[in-house]
Amino acid sequence: MTEKIAIIGSGNWGSAIAKVIGVNVRRYPELFDQEVRMWMFEEDYKGQKLSQIFNKTHENAKYLPGITIDDCVVAVTDVVESIKDATLLVFVTPHQFLKKTCQQIKPHLSPRARAISLIKGVDLNEDGVVLLSDIIKDNLGIDTSVLMGANIANEVAKGMFSEATIGSKDAKNAEMFVKVFDTPTFKCSWIDDVAGVEICGAIKNVVALAAGFCDGMKLPGNTKAAVLRIGLLEMRAFAQYFFSGVKTDTFFESCGLADLFVTCTEGRNRKCAEAFARGGKSFSQVEAELLNGQKLQGTGTAEEVYRILKKKKITQDFPLLTAVYEISFEGKPPRYLLEALANQKPKSKL
Amino acid sequence: MTEKIAIIGSGNWGSAIAKVIGVNVRRYPELFDQEVRMWMFEEDYKGQKLSQIFNKTHENAKYLPGITIDDCVVAVTDVVESIKDATLLVFVTPHQFLKKTCQQIKPHLSPRARAISLIKGVDLNEDGVVLLSDIIKDNLGIDTSVLMGANIANEVAKGMFSEATIGSKDAKNAEMFVKVFDTPTFKCSWIDDVAGVEICGAIKNVVALAAGFCDGMKLPGNTKAAVLRIGLLEMRAFAQYFFSGVKTDTFFESCGLADLFVTCTEGRNRKCAEAFARGGKSFSQVEAELLNGQKLQGTGTAEEVYRILKKKKITQDFPLLTAVYEISFEGKPPRYLLEALANQKPKSKL
Repeated sequence: MTEKIAIIGSGNWGSAIAKVIGVNVRRYPELFDQEVRMWMFEEDYKGQKLSQIFNKTHENAKYLPGITIDDCVVAVTDVVESIKDATLLVFVTPHQFLKKTCQQIKPHLSPRARAISLIKGVDLNEDGVVLLSDIIKDNLGIDTSVLMGANIANEVAKGMFSEATIGSKDAKNAEMFVKVFDTPTFKCSWIDDVAGVEICGAIKNVVALAAGFCDGMKLPGNTKAAVLRIGLLEMRAFAQYFFSGVKTDTFFESCGLADLFVTCTEGRNRKCAEAFARGGKSFSQVEAELLNGQKLQGTGTAEEVYRILKKKKITQDFPLLTAVYEISFEGKPPRYLLEALANQKPKSKL
Repeated sequence: MTEKIAIIGSGNWGSAIAKVIGVNVRRYPELFDQEVRMWMFEEDYKGQKLSQIFNKTHENAKYLPGITIDDCVVAVTDVVESIKDATLLVFVTPHQFLKKTCQQIKPHLSPRARAISLIKGVDLNEDGVVLLSDIIKDNLGIDTSVLMGANIANEVAKGMFSEATIGSKDAKNAEMFVKVFDTPTFKCSWIDDVAGVEICGAIKNVVALAAGFCDGMKLPGNTKAAVLRIGLLEMRAFAQYFFSGVKTDTFFESCGLADLFVTCTEGRNRKCAEAFARGGKSFSQVEAELLNGQKLQGTGTAEEVYRILKKKKITQDFPLLTAVYEISFEGKPPRYLLEALANQKPKSKL
């Protein structure tokens, strides 16, 4: 029995991953139904319907121009229709529509359906951390894996070598998702750790702010390397505090140190934090100047992470994450980052 | 009974670490004898003896100018005299003088003496890998720890925040060495893994060549992040193949991912590999142009590592280290690096 793939979402990342999926659907005709439906939120683009352009040209003219996607991928504007008979649901919707989308499709699911979430970010609520994959799992009642990593949509679409990490609790589903995503230029490994993989994608943006502070203060590479390293360990400690079964090896995967490396050398969180650390401007001003007023993900996450650490009375175990918040929002100077790290006791590991 | 420290070597790194040690000797007068002898190979500097300048000005005018070292540190030109009554031997000699120095001092050792090596690099011989710390241990018959990490002498001397990792098999000695080295701006942790810590310092330079190839080909950050990540895993696999007791946590320490991060973003191995990958020049030509004919450490290590991998018939388990050799010396094009990585099977970790 073949598997039928549905892609729920068709923005920049959704379209890039559709390109990858198209390759593997053709590569394994014995495994996959040769039609992949992709849910597309209908909108006008230069006087035409985006879905009609896509189904005629096999290109997402608005969100991933210049990339031709295999014609096995078909745009469908009704979300319920898009998942009809689908056994593998690939979620790439914006975070804020996730719950509603789940509620819409729930009554129409195939009994064989399993899901994978490619949505970066986590929800932080009063009591702790809510994984987006758990929102899918709990609302649909099906096994849900995640895929994260150091991979940027446009580069993946162009076939630039990159990697991804699949976090899954079910070996059979994980192996199937490796078939869906792994290509010679998009290497996927999998690990039995959903929470660890997913947490990496959110907390890395807070560490990227710390890296940007270092750049703004013109600190040398060794200091920045120390900040990255301590940041990665705090990411691990954070994941392990809130979830059981988080594995150390996860942080060696693409979702861990590789994604952190890129986020701390490129990326807008680093860039805005660098401008902030040069002094004289609040983050709102920096956002207005460098991002046309869009909000950074890192500062929002830093606030939410701090609130939870404070509530759990564990700020002292997370000096870097705590210092990023205090510098960003409580008027501490950027150099306080290093004071906070300097005051840690030497750690030993036997 | 107090401990007496001897610093064997007084180049750039030796002088920087003398600055750190001076701070801690004064900080813990109950622990440390208030005279630290530093062996200085005598040479003339601007018509004066370097050791006389040092003992008058407390500055190593030739190798670390501009930095004043605490006057508890005294330069001694006779190596045997320098270790008299010393219970903690800090080795920062050049690699090539190590064995001879050990033979000279062996008959004069204090019965309480233990050593720590700050010398980066390893010896690769016919049968495998020889740790420099084992050369000290075997020649002197005393417990020998190592200290490595993302730390550059001049930055450490100036008190820029950085970190170091102490690898030691003896908890008491490790804790004593943490007292010797750890300061608020030179944070030392320790781990029970001498070989893992020491191997990191050598193999990182081969990974830095791969990172430089990426830069020379103008590949995006995500590709370079993948190369770093795979490189770190091959460093771990290499250490674990040749030594028992190598720990995964070692590669999260400063000697592991932090030092790799700096070496792959700055550093001359990366820089020369970038120039090489742009094409048209051999590594000898690049070295002549960019390093005044000095030899790169990374290319030499790449050759020796390849020879051992080939002899042990395990090149297929180290596609990145192998590809770096083949690109550097066998005429394969730089893009072959990615072909070698693309052909790996997806890995799973349960």
